Amino acid sequence: MKNSHEKRRVGILGATGMVGQQYISLLEGHPWFTVTHMVASPSSAGKTYAEAVEGRWHMNGSVPKDVQKLVVHTVDDLKAVAKNCDFVFSALDSDIAKEWEEKYAAAGIPVVSNASTHRMTPDVPMIIPEVNPEHLEMITIQQKNRGWDKGFIVVKPNCSIQSYVAPLATLHKKFKIKSVVVTTMQAISGAGHPGVASLDILENVVPLIKGEEEKSELEPRKIFGSIKGDKIVHDESFTISAHCNRVPTIDGHMACVSFSCEKKPTEKEILAAWKDFKGPPQELSLPFAPVQAITYLTEPNRPQPRIDRNRDKGMTVTVGRLREDPVFQWKFVGLSHNTIRGAAGGGILIAELLKAKSYV
Amino acid sequence: MKNSHEKRRVGILGATGMVGQQYISLLEGHPWFTVTHMVASPSSAGKTYAEAVEGRWHMNGSVPKDVQKLVVHTVDDLKAVAKNCDFVFSALDSDIAKEWEEKYAAAGIPVVSNASTHRMTPDVPMIIPEVNPEHLEMITIQQKNRGWDKGFIVVKPNCSIQSYVAPLATLHKKFKIKSVVVTTMQAISGAGHPGVASLDILENVVPLIKGEEEKSELEPRKIFGSIKGDKIVHDESFTISAHCNRVPTIDGHMACVSFSCEKKPTEKEILAAWKDFKGPPQELSLPFAPVQAITYLTEPNRPQPRIDRNRDKGMTVTVGRLREDPVFQWKFVGLSHNTIRGAAGGGILIAELLKAKSYV
Amino acid sequence: MKNSHEKRRVGILGATGMVGQQYISLLEGHPWFTVTHMVASPSSAGKTYAEAVEGRWHMNGSVPKDVQKLVVHTVDDLKAVAKNCDFVFSALDSDIAKEWEEKYAAAGIPVVSNASTHRMTPDVPMIIPEVNPEHLEMITIQQKNRGWDKGFIVVKPNCSIQSYVAPLATLHKKFKIKSVVVTTMQAISGAGHPGVASLDILENVVPLIKGEEEKSELEPRKIFGSIKGDKIVHDESFTISAHCNRVPTIDGHMACVSFSCEKKPTEKEILAAWKDFKGPPQELSLPFAPVQAITYLTEPNRPQPRIDRNRDKGMTVTVGRLREDPVFQWKFVGLSHNTIRGAAGGGILIAELLKAKSYV
Amino acid sequence: MKNSHEKRRVGILGATGMVGQQYISLLEGHPWFTVTHMVASPSSAGKTYAEAVEGRWHMNGSVPKDVQKLVVHTVDDLKAVAKNCDFVFSALDSDIAKEWEEKYAAAGIPVVSNASTHRMTPDVPMIIPEVNPEHLEMITIQQKNRGWDKGFIVVKPNCSIQSYVAPLATLHKKFKIKSVVVTTMQAISGAGHPGVASLDILENVVPLIKGEEEKSELEPRKIFGSIKGDKIVHDESFTISAHCNRVPTIDGHMACVSFSCEKKPTEKEILAAWKDFKGPPQELSLPFAPVQAITYLTEPNRPQPRIDRNRDKGMTVTVGRLREDPVFQWKFVGLSHNTIRGAAGGGILIAELLKAKSYV
Repeated sequence: MKNSHEKRRVGILGATGMVGQQYISLLEGHPWFTVTHMVASPSSAGKTYAEAVEGRWHMNGSVPKDVQKLVVHTVDDLKAVAKNCDFVFSALDSDIAKEWEEKYAAAGIPVVSNASTHRMTPDVPMIIPEVNPEHLEMITIQQKNRGWDKGFIVVKPNCSIQSYVAPLATLHKKFKIKSVVVTTMQAISGAGHPGVASLDILENVVPLIKGEEEKSELEPRKIFGSIKGDKIVHDESFTISAHCNRVPTIDGHMACVSFSCEKKPTEKEILAAWKDFKGPPQELSLPFAPVQAITYLTEPNRPQPRIDRNRDKGMTVTVGRLREDPVFQWKFVGLSHNTIRGAAGGGILIAELLKAKSYV
Repeated sequence: MKNSHEKRRVGILGATGMVGQQYISLLEGHPWFTVTHMVASPSSAGKTYAEAVEGRWHMNGSVPKDVQKLVVHTVDDLKAVAKNCDFVFSALDSDIAKEWEEKYAAAGIPVVSNASTHRMTPDVPMIIPEVNPEHLEMITIQQKNRGWDKGFIVVKPNCSIQSYVAPLATLHKKFKIKSVVVTTMQAISGAGHPGVASLDILENVVPLIKGEEEKSELEPRKIFGSIKGDKIVHDESFTISAHCNRVPTIDGHMACVSFSCEKKPTEKEILAAWKDFKGPPQELSLPFAPVQAITYLTEPNRPQPRIDRNRDKGMTVTVGRLREDPVFQWKFVGLSHNTIRGAAGGGILIAELLKAKSYV
Repeated sequence: MKNSHEKRRVGILGATGMVGQQYISLLEGHPWFTVTHMVASPSSAGKTYAEAVEGRWHMNGSVPKDVQKLVVHTVDDLKAVAKNCDFVFSALDSDIAKEWEEKYAAAGIPVVSNASTHRMTPDVPMIIPEVNPEHLEMITIQQKNRGWDKGFIVVKPNCSIQSYVAPLATLHKKFKIKSVVVTTMQAISGAGHPGVASLDILENVVPLIKGEEEKSELEPRKIFGSIKGDKIVHDESFTISAHCNRVPTIDGHMACVSFSCEKKPTEKEILAAWKDFKGPPQELSLPFAPVQAITYLTEPNRPQPRIDRNRDKGMTVTVGRLREDPVFQWKFVGLSHNTIRGAAGGGILIAELLKAKSYV
Repeated sequence: MKNSHEKRRVGILGATGMVGQQYISLLEGHPWFTVTHMVASPSSAGKTYAEAVEGRWHMNGSVPKDVQKLVVHTVDDLKAVAKNCDFVFSALDSDIAKEWEEKYAAAGIPVVSNASTHRMTPDVPMIIPEVNPEHLEMITIQQKNRGWDKGFIVVKPNCSIQSYVAPLATLHKKFKIKSVVVTTMQAISGAGHPGVASLDILENVVPLIKGEEEKSELEPRKIFGSIKGDKIVHDESFTISAHCNRVPTIDGHMACVSFSCEKKPTEKEILAAWKDFKGPPQELSLPFAPVQAITYLTEPNRPQPRIDRNRDKGMTVTVGRLREDPVFQWKFVGLSHNTIRGAAGGGILIAELLKAKSYV
């Protein structure tokens, strides 16, 4: 393990895709991490990163100077990774993520993954740093289970749940959430590029995002779960029903949430729970940590994706419109920046926590 | 009362506003009704209708030829109305609707109203022709209550509820709905013109439409209610919770609905109930009646506002994605054209039913 | 040749693509033509048309009943075409259009093509029925050139030029157009499906449509050209400069046009030329002919794509804002529905003219 | 005059409107200027600024802390202005701007104005700091003309011309521009709030912005003009024709430009002129100066409003697609952020230049 003051060298798996580009864009100038290694498909291999993304760089501004000249490697070049990186962010396609993330971990490379492959793997922790940092203890168990030495895999959850899992998590700890109905209105960037055809979404709403409702209903149970023996056991004390819709916004997944707890909390208790909610990112002042993990807006028509998604560098979850619900106990609106908090930014925050806890 | 073959002469109150324009546009070439009288604000009075809407005609195409030369009257010119009209459609602003709709009714003029003023008035029926046609019996009671002779007031409900009230109504009759959570994604045309500022809604979602959630939770209870003595008593056997959002679509209000019944129906029973659902508009082949009151789409990503709102002349309610709900019993997606079925088209269908039943 | 009262049997080449679907949608209930034959890629061959487009039918409403059961053939099944069709509409991809359109024509099948392949072929007429119907005389010459018997190829021009070629054509005949600068704002449907990625165009403008400016500058010269010997000679007496932009509209290509003539016409002369402009479609009352080939709108802020594109069934060219230009003589705004007049509707109008002139 | 190291105290006239809000938002943390005074309509007077904009703050994030408690004054409270401010930014409505800007100047207060009132006043300089900084010499002449002591008025031009005036200015100096045709595609924020109704612009283009074409054709002649005696004489050596359109983008005015010069420059000469273009903002490293006054993008489909408007803090003019024009000599695409460079940011840059030159 490096000295805590040394910068970590980072590899990006799937570096030319949308999530890979977001990692590269957000990591520019990062105080702890330096991008030193790029992995993409064979068609990009051998090119510089600037050449590989020419004509398909979708971030604002230009390709960061520091990485323009990095040469792109193929995923199977494990030696290069081992030599160039202290850990990797994986934005690999799901179909190859399982094989390669495990090979990387076996080869001693920690993997922070955005792929959905391992989200339901019992010994792989799925982390929201403010919500379930204690699940990082699974890393040692996972290494033991797998016979891995220094390498391991941690994953971040699906972007669609970020706008309500944090607000529910703090209430769950205090008041025991029992049931939730959530309807999401999700931005087009969540589907990557080319992703959603403009003819399908302009002046329209599409009431289906394949697989999204299933993930939205299932993943929170793992995140709220607990380590029992060599795995994470889901928390099945509550049930979520999700409706997931695609709407014509660029960034920012929004959710209308109705919920009930074992014991109905007061409005004051809920607002206090949200205001006070914090975790290691805030306590350790991690570079990507929002000042407030949850930001409650008092204006009656907020949050709104275009106006509020970038608050606190796109890393806070913005919440509003808490009001009583005639069917459930309470209802509210949540918003999270899907390509920052919900994707690369969320992955970076996990990596920062891993470094702070000396896992990388 | 005129002979049933004679065309009814129709006045439009609030003729220059958006809903007024929709009435005029949809009534062009109507087989039973002829627009013969225009009422608008004093600033338009005395002008021809074409002059009055110059530069602010928001319908597709041009002002229908037949009404271009009609002279606009003020609302207080009761004599002209009595002389020119067999009944009126009211699209008056809520603040003056109460006074003038009652004066018109008292003066012997039947009023079919889009205003919200009288929706909660106990002796005013709020009609969806396929759902609660029996509430028209309130007309006689209302006339007796008020001492009115030929005049009366009937209203149509808020546009936001049209996409799920019909699908729920038929299930309520058979299986007793108990609880519903609905999240709407409503089109900008619902706010009229100028209505929603483009800076507020382009590439955005606004999670508040003032007063809409309250109406959405309350109005179905009156529609599903029953006549007891001299008023309509609400059906309080079920509860609705509504989240109402404005999204950047032109037309078409969409709803994600989760619901439970006293006894859980099967998928087959629900689909059969929707397929078989019909009322007097279908039985009497009213001119504006959709062939199917409810159209179920089997494609997994439908209905969608831009693609499906115009089915069956914008008068059918399109439904899709019926699936089991882990918190409630079932969930589905509903869609209704808010400025046709949800506004002027819905009003015209009420008037057609009134004529078929010899109320006008 | 069939009796003029018999319906023509029509094949659609490229039947499952966007333009193919538009043909099928617009031909539903056509008085002269019946779709009897479908050609698509091998992956669709053998399926019914309904099966072949399942999940990718992009037209409003459902697949027309009459064609749902038609079996899809491959392009090389010439015998089936010869047996089933009197002529075909080709919406083949450009890369295979050249080979197959010529094989069909050689096999005796008239081809009305939307592909760009043959637009610049000297003996293939490129037709806008009101503008250059006399170019149909090339058919006989083409047949002689190629040694074809009954078959031939006629093409329609690119959709981007439809909004200004007709308005300029009538002025060119009277006043000799010399120079034109045109800036287009083109709808996303012009790129087909999936076409433009929503992330590329939502809340954005893209100032490049590959190849479009070149076509826009060149095609009008052929359309305004004349038959000399065995080919069409371009009219090089005028020059066009085009800027082509993609904007977030669904349908309707719009153009801002500045132009000068040999002799400057008066405003009155221009408006009269546009009003009086007509051709065989109007004179023969062809089924798809707009009443007015050019519709001038006097409102100062028109035409607008969403409001005006559907005028006259999407077949008229809408023009507005004629005003003096400080650099050129005059400037104006033009609009044409790109998927109706500019694609399948324009092709159908050509075919109607071909039938009226006994070419099919 | 204050010492050059002292911060200037700034008043905002029209502080609650969109442009006023932009000034306040952009001036947060400004190294030279501190907002100390707010002027708005009588309905806001006496309130704190935070109260005055409650429910109508349209900038991202919240009202800057430093100004939340500033009390709003009415425009006629000249004493308060004189006491609190070293100069003012005026975002007054045009109808009252003339009277009050002159009264402020007469009272010794320098005025940097966004209003259109004084743009054509011969002794009021209209400044783009990189283009015509020498016009600031009019200030002394203006003071003499008017008998003003310390006060004066300078204005910034209309936002619509910013995307092409700088690129043309440097070419005009070297190659003498003769004629220009420009078609703009302008963002909705240019119309303020509520501004453009969403029903008018969603999935649409509006080919009219009142008065915009006239300003676009006229203002560059004053900016390129020269001081003769006591006024600025327009440069009438070139002519511009403008088509101005509103498109559904949030920010960023785009222009398609065709132009000819007295002597046709080469591509290399043009690109070099743009690359080398700079003025006092760059030479003096003014805080709001972009590094490059003009940024040329080589990608073939750029600039694009959503992707490129924020380059260099929204202060650079982005240009692309330089290519030969068959009617003119050259054509290109320009883009400028209309609410930053084209409004408050442009005003701040003028004020920075005024301070650097000791005018304030």
